[in-house]
Amino acid sequence: MKFPIRPIDPHWIRLAEARQLELTKPPGSLGRLEEIANRCAAIFENLSFRLSRPRIVLFAGDHGVCAEGVSPYPQEVTAQMVFNFLNGGAAINCLARAAGIDLEVVDVGVAAPLPPLPGLTARRIACGTRNFCHEPAMTREQAEGALQVGFEIAGQAVAEGSNLLGFGEMGIGNTTTAAALTAALTGCAPADAVGRGTGADEACIARKIAAIERAFAAHSGRLADPLEMLSRIGGLEIAAMCGYCLGAASRRRPVVTDGFIATAAAALAVRLDPNVKDYLFAAHLSSEPGHRRLLAALDVRPLLDLEMRLGEGTGAALAMQIMEAAAAAFTGMATFASAGVSGRS
Amino acid sequence: MKFPIRPIDPHWIRLAEARQLELTKPPGSLGRLEEIANRCAAIFENLSFRLSRPRIVLFAGDHGVCAEGVSPYPQEVTAQMVFNFLNGGAAINCLARAAGIDLEVVDVGVAAPLPPLPGLTARRIACGTRNFCHEPAMTREQAEGALQVGFEIAGQAVAEGSNLLGFGEMGIGNTTTAAALTAALTGCAPADAVGRGTGADEACIARKIAAIERAFAAHSGRLADPLEMLSRIGGLEIAAMCGYCLGAASRRRPVVTDGFIATAAAALAVRLDPNVKDYLFAAHLSSEPGHRRLLAALDVRPLLDLEMRLGEGTGAALAMQIMEAAAAAFTGMATFASAGVSGRS
Repeated sequence: MKFPIRPIDPHWIRLAEARQLELTKPPGSLGRLEEIANRCAAIFENLSFRLSRPRIVLFAGDHGVCAEGVSPYPQEVTAQMVFNFLNGGAAINCLARAAGIDLEVVDVGVAAPLPPLPGLTARRIACGTRNFCHEPAMTREQAEGALQVGFEIAGQAVAEGSNLLGFGEMGIGNTTTAAALTAALTGCAPADAVGRGTGADEACIARKIAAIERAFAAHSGRLADPLEMLSRIGGLEIAAMCGYCLGAASRRRPVVTDGFIATAAAALAVRLDPNVKDYLFAAHLSSEPGHRRLLAALDVRPLLDLEMRLGEGTGAALAMQIMEAAAAAFTGMATFASAGVSGRS
Repeated sequence: MKFPIRPIDPHWIRLAEARQLELTKPPGSLGRLEEIANRCAAIFENLSFRLSRPRIVLFAGDHGVCAEGVSPYPQEVTAQMVFNFLNGGAAINCLARAAGIDLEVVDVGVAAPLPPLPGLTARRIACGTRNFCHEPAMTREQAEGALQVGFEIAGQAVAEGSNLLGFGEMGIGNTTTAAALTAALTGCAPADAVGRGTGADEACIARKIAAIERAFAAHSGRLADPLEMLSRIGGLEIAAMCGYCLGAASRRRPVVTDGFIATAAAALAVRLDPNVKDYLFAAHLSSEPGHRRLLAALDVRPLLDLEMRLGEGTGAALAMQIMEAAAAAFTGMATFASAGVSGRS
């Protein structure tokens, strides 16, 4: 993996801000759209950048912690949903089609063996993680292998012309994994990082909290290093998403998170290299309680708050449309001079 | 104008909610997208509805209150921006192009005479309003004429196949008019409804507040009836947007507000017929302080909060994409049964 990642140059932010003042609108009146466009201009070092071929990559992987009864859905749903993605029937398929976003589905570690399937990128590292309540979820080699998958997938997307990289995930049980990472990353109590996920009842939420507490006991004192944290209490799809953020940033492309689990991966990427943050756009605030803590720890503001909690890149798909609008205005608007519009008195 | 407007039938909301539970996602996990889709299904009385040919109509008009020095921009900017819209150089042009939204520009009362221009719908009622600090902004006939324009424009959009109707405005000085209407509609003090608009400084804000206080003195006791309020302290483009909301609702189409001024028009439409609210979607919360008060008085929650304050339908364009995503997921997703995905254990 190509490190280090170069931070954006604040000089380009100033150039973009100056350009915004020439466009036919009151200064600042496009609000956060201006902030998005200015940062993209700095990322591309170009005031006429294009957000071409937006792509969302969905990483799928299974979680050994499912053995603790942390999800109301059976583990086989991960593989079933991969089929659903490939058949175009999931929410993200509909949202990506509506928005003209390419979708790629990557198997990094679904428990059930998947046959070669049209449209599926097969990069399986393991048949799911192990149960982190009792042992590390992954070996260090598995975690680094999954990171490398994500890093390469981002590079492939860039090589194929994508200038806006979103991502999402599928993995039954992975809100528990994300909550464990959130507690480890932010220092909050497990109970403050756990939410209903796909619809956990009170007893299921208690099992989620208990599983994380057991994991913290099992891995006590071994979670300070981000790669060790990732391999001990992370997930294969989370490692791949983390690598994807690093890959996008190393190639200087804006990268768009999704919800709680995707943001946990992004937070790990920022822990591995703080300069990732310059390339990162937070899509939305999900209704998972741990998400707010992660975003606060990252000190990033999400673009949307639509009370979604589905994952799959659905929040990314909506945010990427906002970003495309921001770019379209910045690069397409007339100036006061060119349009013959009077400035302020 | 065809009254009364029929409220939506809650039976259709229940049918849509039941359908949502069959789709391959945890119950409720698409958050507000589900709420949008369910209401659209009830509006169309159809679980397979399509949001075809989305359109934003921009209504332009001038304001006599500009004589009080309430805007940092000269009044001729209204006409100049109409040219900019027709030439495709404004922010809304870029956003509508990016989102595949049709744009229509209507002159309801720009002060400067506009020649016949390709793409301009000429429905001028007057050469701007009069200064409401001293006399009614419009005669009753002018206000009703502008309402009728908006009503007919909505009907024309529906006749041309638009199933999703957004709107916006252009009118130098119209944040003062919207603030006057907000104070009259909600009972708040003029100072609490006034904001920076296009970029007013403290002295300009003081002039805005003073203008509204003079208007309230001049029209004391004559602002209770919504049509009289509209004609005395409203605007031509505001009356037309109000008529547009009534027209969209009477033809049973979802209608999407924009920012502060558009929402003032929508609030008047709801005052004229409370059933309009069933068809109304609030696009965003603008950074104009009066907007929050108007939305609270309407008891509607905006979809977006991106600190925008441009008008022109720019907030509507972004929200309409969210609504199209909501509709695409609702009508395009596979069911648990059709996709062979296991339900909850």
